[in-house]
Amino acid sequence: MDAAISQDELQLAARNHGMPLEALRYPITPAGLHYLLIHYDIPDVDADRWTLSVEERVAKPLTLSLADLRERPSREVTAAMECAGNGRAFLAPHVVSQPWLLEAVGNATWTGVPLRLILEEAKVLDDAVEVVFTGLDRGIEKGVEQSYQRSLELDLALTDDVLLAYEMNGAPLLPQHGFPLRLLVPGWYGMTSVKWLASISVIAKPFQGYQHTAAYRYRGTEEDEGTPVTRIQPRALMVPPGIPDFNTRERTVPAGLCLLEGRAWSGWAPISRVEVSTDDGETWADAELEPLETRWGWRGWRFEWAADEPGEYVLCCRAQDEAGNVQPDEAAWNLGGYSNNSPQRVRVTVE
Amino acid sequence: MDAAISQDELQLAARNHGMPLEALRYPITPAGLHYLLIHYDIPDVDADRWTLSVEERVAKPLTLSLADLRERPSREVTAAMECAGNGRAFLAPHVVSQPWLLEAVGNATWTGVPLRLILEEAKVLDDAVEVVFTGLDRGIEKGVEQSYQRSLELDLALTDDVLLAYEMNGAPLLPQHGFPLRLLVPGWYGMTSVKWLASISVIAKPFQGYQHTAAYRYRGTEEDEGTPVTRIQPRALMVPPGIPDFNTRERTVPAGLCLLEGRAWSGWAPISRVEVSTDDGETWADAELEPLETRWGWRGWRFEWAADEPGEYVLCCRAQDEAGNVQPDEAAWNLGGYSNNSPQRVRVTVE
Repeated sequence: MDAAISQDELQLAARNHGMPLEALRYPITPAGLHYLLIHYDIPDVDADRWTLSVEERVAKPLTLSLADLRERPSREVTAAMECAGNGRAFLAPHVVSQPWLLEAVGNATWTGVPLRLILEEAKVLDDAVEVVFTGLDRGIEKGVEQSYQRSLELDLALTDDVLLAYEMNGAPLLPQHGFPLRLLVPGWYGMTSVKWLASISVIAKPFQGYQHTAAYRYRGTEEDEGTPVTRIQPRALMVPPGIPDFNTRERTVPAGLCLLEGRAWSGWAPISRVEVSTDDGETWADAELEPLETRWGWRGWRFEWAADEPGEYVLCCRAQDEAGNVQPDEAAWNLGGYSNNSPQRVRVTVE
Repeated sequence: MDAAISQDELQLAARNHGMPLEALRYPITPAGLHYLLIHYDIPDVDADRWTLSVEERVAKPLTLSLADLRERPSREVTAAMECAGNGRAFLAPHVVSQPWLLEAVGNATWTGVPLRLILEEAKVLDDAVEVVFTGLDRGIEKGVEQSYQRSLELDLALTDDVLLAYEMNGAPLLPQHGFPLRLLVPGWYGMTSVKWLASISVIAKPFQGYQHTAAYRYRGTEEDEGTPVTRIQPRALMVPPGIPDFNTRERTVPAGLCLLEGRAWSGWAPISRVEVSTDDGETWADAELEPLETRWGWRGWRFEWAADEPGEYVLCCRAQDEAGNVQPDEAAWNLGGYSNNSPQRVRVTVE
């Protein structure tokens, strides 16, 4: 729990923003509070000269401007997005990469053209199996120079809620969220939703890019081929109650009734249950769920804690989805430090 | 240079956002990229019920709504803002607090009522010497429970560019920047520009609050009374050129002419000179300064680097202001880790 972070990791933490957990109070995460994970640099894009190309295994290759995309039918999707590395910094043994604690999340409403419409317009050929998305961001990982690229299997790419998004919460994308256009794949960890799109390539065999074969796999050892990181595992988080200590972020709450509130999400199925523990996971009680408003957005919950006895407490919460996925007491370690959805622990002193 | 960061410090880094340095390219920092330092939590404010009180050594105490403030004459001020702790994580011996590298900066245009107008309206009494600003954010530092408070000497409070700001870059303040109202004191480190204002108290003797007497002082030892941290020391930063390595953020640049660009600022006087070194500070050459557009905003600069020879380089930059303040080769260490304006060092491989 107290692994030292190197200066290289700190450089990553300084530029990849987390969502301060009190921002769980907002149904939609305000501008600037949604998490960010930027592999390389935010590219400098001139929207007037920018185009998106749709190419390779299509009968009708396309070159589309932002205006072209905005003229096409649009759709809004509200989705909780989370980084696959959220929780990484709690893992032991320590995993060196962006050192997320629990802040790598946000909930936003995205507007864009359904990808399906663009693929239909381009007339995908019969031998197509995947769609590759290439961003304008370029860098080096473990010696491999690359543009950021991820692919989707064709079946998923043709589902209605996968968007080519040009707006976030009703405003044009901010530079750091992929301006002028990004992919949005709701329910999947954020690495899937490629930002700063340059091209979409339909291909006839599975994509073997770095971000599929080297990164974003659940692997136990370097030799292990592993399995791909895909959809978001269930997680509940709470707004830390009371007031914080500046240095430790530990909380102080006055004795009496304390309302605990938070959000929960899963990329596999709607959230069906949130539980709260006020004794560091020894015993659990059901939280009250808010109505399920959207399929992919996070779900609110609340729990009235009778914090009558002064003392030290560790508050925890955990979520379950309709497919039966639960947050484990301790998530399995893996080499990349992905999907650590062990329950949040919040230290509180009741006074 | 490689002091280990604890998990407590990482918690601070995860919630206090830095400005990724490629965002130096924007003349005005876009929403969500300006740095943030939030001592406690972002408060939850209902703007319809919120009021600002102006009280104590005034003949006419005021209670003002946001609408009241918006009805009064307004002023726009563009200002570079920097955290007093920027550069702290490079110091040795290590200083435990928010572990900033170099990202704690941003340049924004603020709109609000000049504080002077409100103080004149409240009719400050003759014995007044300082003005105390209290925020709605509450927490504990070194055992002291407090609302965040800072004061200004009356002379400074009555200068034209000190604002009660309700807009940032033409939009209402975002929650994390002090919605609905914050102080803006251009040229001073960010701790001065109190966010989420609740009250303004005019007082007849110097303020002795925690953020003046315990924090934000240049001190060599715990026993040292020290001197207050006030205006922003000069600093130049560059957009790191080329492309980054994901883990180390080290840069790779193709051989040939490489344009280096950045910004510089000082709270003491306008920037008069920026120099660049491509040999880790052995030799320096003048950068070309962009026109000085505003008094408090950062000033752009550029330098054409003839990066003809493949190899390893360390690029540096440093600024000087019209008052003769310069960036030292190595800034003086102090207990709080404030104002470390030693020159930026960017490792680059030319290929």
